[in-house]
Amino acid sequence: MKTTISHESFRAALKAVRANSPLVHNITNYVAMNNSANALLAIGASPVMAHWRDEMEEMTAIAGALVINIGTLDGEWIEGMRAAGVAALRRGTPIVLDPVGAGATSQRTATALRLIEECKPTVIRGNGSEIMALVDANTKSKGVDSSASSHDALTAAKSLAKSTGSVVVISGEVDYITDGTTTHTVEGGDPIMTSVTGMGCTSTALVGAFLAVESDALVAATSAMALMSLAGERAAAYSKGSGSMQMNFLDELYNLTPEMV
Amino acid sequence: MKTTISHESFRAALKAVRANSPLVHNITNYVAMNNSANALLAIGASPVMAHWRDEMEEMTAIAGALVINIGTLDGEWIEGMRAAGVAALRRGTPIVLDPVGAGATSQRTATALRLIEECKPTVIRGNGSEIMALVDANTKSKGVDSSASSHDALTAAKSLAKSTGSVVVISGEVDYITDGTTTHTVEGGDPIMTSVTGMGCTSTALVGAFLAVESDALVAATSAMALMSLAGERAAAYSKGSGSMQMNFLDELYNLTPEMV
Amino acid sequence: MKTTISHESFRAALKAVRANSPLVHNITNYVAMNNSANALLAIGASPVMAHWRDEMEEMTAIAGALVINIGTLDGEWIEGMRAAGVAALRRGTPIVLDPVGAGATSQRTATALRLIEECKPTVIRGNGSEIMALVDANTKSKGVDSSASSHDALTAAKSLAKSTGSVVVISGEVDYITDGTTTHTVEGGDPIMTSVTGMGCTSTALVGAFLAVESDALVAATSAMALMSLAGERAAAYSKGSGSMQMNFLDELYNLTPEMV
Repeated sequence: MKTTISHESFRAALKAVRANSPLVHNITNYVAMNNSANALLAIGASPVMAHWRDEMEEMTAIAGALVINIGTLDGEWIEGMRAAGVAALRRGTPIVLDPVGAGATSQRTATALRLIEECKPTVIRGNGSEIMALVDANTKSKGVDSSASSHDALTAAKSLAKSTGSVVVISGEVDYITDGTTTHTVEGGDPIMTSVTGMGCTSTALVGAFLAVESDALVAATSAMALMSLAGERAAAYSKGSGSMQMNFLDELYNLTPEMV
Repeated sequence: MKTTISHESFRAALKAVRANSPLVHNITNYVAMNNSANALLAIGASPVMAHWRDEMEEMTAIAGALVINIGTLDGEWIEGMRAAGVAALRRGTPIVLDPVGAGATSQRTATALRLIEECKPTVIRGNGSEIMALVDANTKSKGVDSSASSHDALTAAKSLAKSTGSVVVISGEVDYITDGTTTHTVEGGDPIMTSVTGMGCTSTALVGAFLAVESDALVAATSAMALMSLAGERAAAYSKGSGSMQMNFLDELYNLTPEMV
Repeated sequence: MKTTISHESFRAALKAVRANSPLVHNITNYVAMNNSANALLAIGASPVMAHWRDEMEEMTAIAGALVINIGTLDGEWIEGMRAAGVAALRRGTPIVLDPVGAGATSQRTATALRLIEECKPTVIRGNGSEIMALVDANTKSKGVDSSASSHDALTAAKSLAKSTGSVVVISGEVDYITDGTTTHTVEGGDPIMTSVTGMGCTSTALVGAFLAVESDALVAATSAMALMSLAGERAAAYSKGSGSMQMNFLDELYNLTPEMV
């Protein structure tokens, strides 16, 4: 794994997650809930999954960060996401948004844009196609996959960061993390990670954990992506297929200590 | 694994899945979502899980096949299933229906029958009890398990295939795949597969992937069942229990190439 | 693993689960559904996951026990839980309630208390904070974690058992199982179990399986907790991290026979 943030910053951020065990409130999709909760536990955070509109105000009040992921969306859930997002914004609780499938349907693009407008997420993390769809609603993505070129995607990410004030993360062979002016990169990981469902969603959840303990959103998001990459390449080295990769990835997250970075 | 379709057909179908990476749209149950998505990724397909009625029209438009599984049903989801099914039918997109728990409650039987009538699924896949419940609504099944004799079940499957025009698949010790006239079989797999949740649902998802690339529904469905059986018996050979079986099964799916058939 | 119930009782209860393969109806959270279903299958029970209000009456009629877990709650699901709980109560079907996150939000506390009042669960299983929140609604818990002292929690458990007539289980380093007068304990397990999501929910599901075959609720609940502890410590002995722990735990459940107790 190679990253442009200092290893000291990354190490300090990981240490802070393990030391503070932040409560991370997730409104995420059905597919990735188990993986996300396990990944958060593995790095020492404390996940809570809750989406009921009626309890969003109180749940947000005890959380260190809010993760909103629109992977398996419907009308009721959108109301829960909006209520939680607005409450978190009012409290100054950091928010990370994963606009899963933006561009695949106009409803997803519109929902993501509405959440961005109303909740002003600290970080937006998606693949290239999704980020491009948020900048140009005419971009079509093929489901939840990324097919955009990294150059066009980075241009879109910078533009989105500038217009929203959010740090924008694009996952891909190289991850880009930008506030529109400064751009960090993370290289590494392994191609087999794209054959395990919910890896992108898991990285969004980890961004949430880092945001809860690190006020510099660029450092927090880059640290989360670096941790994904590091655990991913370590796990891939001895995984026999995508099934064992999913398991070994969690073992690596569990065992990675700041000293090993 | 033994099957009555030619290994050439099976090999060609598997090759087509890996080559075309079809987008498979799943409206499936909460229990099997992660397994189904991982299994689809493992064979090279591209899964999307989405159930929101408002986006069904657009999601269906970009998918190569639609998987409808009624395992964890409620009123809202039924509306999503109907909207997606009708849109897929209109477009000529193949549909596979998994009537999970038909016969366990009258609401499930009725929902499955309604989806069959409105969406005319290309393939219906269930266990013996479920298929029998669709033919004779007085058949009671014990939850989601199969307890029907294979002879009665096959008779029901042929009858259902003839009355609906769907290819009907019964999973069991021997799988039967029939259009009412021609019946293929798949033997193999391993009993431990029944101790891993969502294996039936996963096979339905794989039928979807094969339908997206193979226009002969008998060949597509039989290939999917053969692949399940082959990966299952390979994984069972070295699994220590149902936990490792779930993981090893994914590894086998990931590593199985057309050449190995 | 050490427990205060006799090994004969535990062995007989486990034998009865494997012999009778009871149908356990679960209304549980999205995170733990897959784990719970797999754990139930591993011990020889037959899980069904269903929450749709319209089918609760019929589903309850074929089940040997009902598991209600409020982990990922919303208004629709509460209606399903109430309908199932009331139907099970009327039929004399045992119910186990897991008040996940009681104390974290007032809505969860209120929902759990309402379910207790309307459905009179045979067993209530939670961590110390959750049980204390049900006795004193002013207790705040940090999300879904337990932070209560075991002495205060046991006092609360006995009080809750006496006021409700339910057997109350507190999970922790030592598990307490009490009807208010008699208290059993289970010691063992392994700290890594707290790094795997859904372990508490899984234990609640196993309590359901034991309740379906063992009429003494203290014995049933203690046996389930003892089985969790035993499988947990066996799996932890060779797990490399929380990922492999999740898998190995299922393998151990699958392979544990009454003779090994």
